[in-house]
Amino acid sequence: MIDYFSSDFKLGILGGGQLGKMMLYETRKYDIQTLVLDPSEEAPCKISCNYFERGDLMDYETVLNFGRKADVLTFEIEGVNIEALKQLASEGIKTYPTAETLEKIQNKAVQKEFYKSENIPTSPFAVFQNLEELKSSINNGDTPLPFVWKSAVGGYDGKGVSVIREADDLNELSMGECIAEDLIAFKNELAVIVARSASGEVKTYPVVEMEFHPTANQVEYVICPARIDKRVAENARNIAEKVSNSFKHVGLLAVEMFQTEDDEILVNEVAPRPHNSGHYSIEASYTNQFEQHIRAILDLPLGDTSSKVGGIMVNLVGEKGHEGEVVYENIDQIMQMKGVTPHIYGKKITRPFRKMGHVTIVNENLDEARIIAEKVKKSIKVISK
Amino acid sequence: MIDYFSSDFKLGILGGGQLGKMMLYETRKYDIQTLVLDPSEEAPCKISCNYFERGDLMDYETVLNFGRKADVLTFEIEGVNIEALKQLASEGIKTYPTAETLEKIQNKAVQKEFYKSENIPTSPFAVFQNLEELKSSINNGDTPLPFVWKSAVGGYDGKGVSVIREADDLNELSMGECIAEDLIAFKNELAVIVARSASGEVKTYPVVEMEFHPTANQVEYVICPARIDKRVAENARNIAEKVSNSFKHVGLLAVEMFQTEDDEILVNEVAPRPHNSGHYSIEASYTNQFEQHIRAILDLPLGDTSSKVGGIMVNLVGEKGHEGEVVYENIDQIMQMKGVTPHIYGKKITRPFRKMGHVTIVNENLDEARIIAEKVKKSIKVISK
Repeated sequence: MIDYFSSDFKLGILGGGQLGKMMLYETRKYDIQTLVLDPSEEAPCKISCNYFERGDLMDYETVLNFGRKADVLTFEIEGVNIEALKQLASEGIKTYPTAETLEKIQNKAVQKEFYKSENIPTSPFAVFQNLEELKSSINNGDTPLPFVWKSAVGGYDGKGVSVIREADDLNELSMGECIAEDLIAFKNELAVIVARSASGEVKTYPVVEMEFHPTANQVEYVICPARIDKRVAENARNIAEKVSNSFKHVGLLAVEMFQTEDDEILVNEVAPRPHNSGHYSIEASYTNQFEQHIRAILDLPLGDTSSKVGGIMVNLVGEKGHEGEVVYENIDQIMQMKGVTPHIYGKKITRPFRKMGHVTIVNENLDEARIIAEKVKKSIKVISK
Repeated sequence: MIDYFSSDFKLGILGGGQLGKMMLYETRKYDIQTLVLDPSEEAPCKISCNYFERGDLMDYETVLNFGRKADVLTFEIEGVNIEALKQLASEGIKTYPTAETLEKIQNKAVQKEFYKSENIPTSPFAVFQNLEELKSSINNGDTPLPFVWKSAVGGYDGKGVSVIREADDLNELSMGECIAEDLIAFKNELAVIVARSASGEVKTYPVVEMEFHPTANQVEYVICPARIDKRVAENARNIAEKVSNSFKHVGLLAVEMFQTEDDEILVNEVAPRPHNSGHYSIEASYTNQFEQHIRAILDLPLGDTSSKVGGIMVNLVGEKGHEGEVVYENIDQIMQMKGVTPHIYGKKITRPFRKMGHVTIVNENLDEARIIAEKVKKSIKVISK
């Protein structure tokens, strides 16, 4: 085993946002040296890493030169220069997840084709090189309304995804490569986080259930464990594990899924990193997702993915009509509630729907947690001064 | 309420060791700005705080000038300049715990006298201004052997405490002010951590049970909850709460106690800060001790002190015969065990008995945790390269 702890070993992280910040709690716990690259001087990761560099994650030279300072390189955001990762790998720097895996995920059209070729259940879809192609397909009846439009690249936090119900909805779409997916009637949106280590050890976390905000298309509650049938949960975990193995993924993979009206599981999409749907694990799990990611990419034994208690996560997003220096109104009120832990990401400026933090509610009784979660949601407001 | 979160508010911390380091996980979680003062450039806190200053914690001017940069000042080690804290308080900078409380604790003779005056149960003792006074008291029969000698100042981690069984044992003692305590026949060494906020809200953690290393006088296992009678535990928590209130203590107070053969509780000594006996709380408690300390000194609502699961803490101390660059032998083995989390403090050099980290073992079943804890203890070794 390589000596990672209080040693000269260096872990590089591409991206310095909240996911990286929470990952750094774990590298600090293990005293693993870290280097972080992020385009912003205000990056939440700027302190807590051993070395911070400001730079463009999509720029070949920047990523290459940064990566050469690390022994193992990972990322907390998918939008990074893949060619630089390939070059680094050829120079013997371990990049996990690998460029080859990331390539299959970064582009949603490629991702969907991959599921098809691997016999992983996913909703029916068609790929279009641009918006014009999609429009003619609708016009000649090959793509019936309604359907789900997804931009092949650059989608994030509800951007790049739209339900198309009538022709007018097309006007708001971006021009590039896209997919049209069947609009699935589903009971639940679920997610399973899979950890897979460099030597192939695999563990799945319990299934979580997601409730989305009705308009902003952002997750409102993440509930662990999902209140679903045991067999459905088992099936979801098996499928998630299959996805991770198919990708030969190393690190964490968050697999988002639909539970259809017929209790079928369809893979929606994946994120090759710690994920919003796993934040509950910091307070609820034996091994939280960030520690698990580090264990996986450093080829350490994976930790126990089971939960100590039930967990619910509420995102803290900026209120509509508020832009400016952030204030967390009534945060003292929610801190009085049982099992409530706020996480503040450290962004100084709030904007409508911007992810500013999250709150975890843990409880032995999940129903009680759900009641408290609603109180949390009603109390705290992310506003500007 | 003052706006602490992502604001200009600044928390100063005197001392930059492992306790401060673990406190910084929580200030980062809340995005509270921190300043740290420590004499060493290698201090574990050096990264993760917003501003680090190297300086002597016992130097009046250094502490005063550092403290003036903070809005609230706390400490992670008791050996700080009290006069500077008093001056800062007079200038309107909140210092928690206060200089007045710390003054009663820093000197163990004063601390014992305080318990006596407050009717807090503690073992019988006598105070001596120097070693000569103690020797004559032994010679004229006023202090019968055996007894426990404690240096009034500077004791830490088993230093400054000695069981005196025969006259020769006196040769190894330091010269200064000291106390001689009756050697108590006890069943258990217990500890209770009390949180008391600036506005007087008080909460106690469950009683923990400590097992000491037979020779090094360092804690070997900390077990939560202590496997003791419910009424004894209740009594211990009540006494700990009384101690905190008597001191008008603000922040965390670790109250170390003896459970005598007759199930009496005697207060041994206190530490006015997060404490080794509370490390289990990071993984086991709803609110860990470091978060609780911050809540208390910032006058935020105190969090739930109860446990999600049983917890056992094992200190990682340097092996005998090893001095030099540290290696954590078999750390990968213990990471395979259920519910095991190592914490590496980040000291580069190991020395015999130096506290280099700790390991927490959590489990729904405390007996199972105890079995795993022993396996942990037998596997991992803190050695030099």
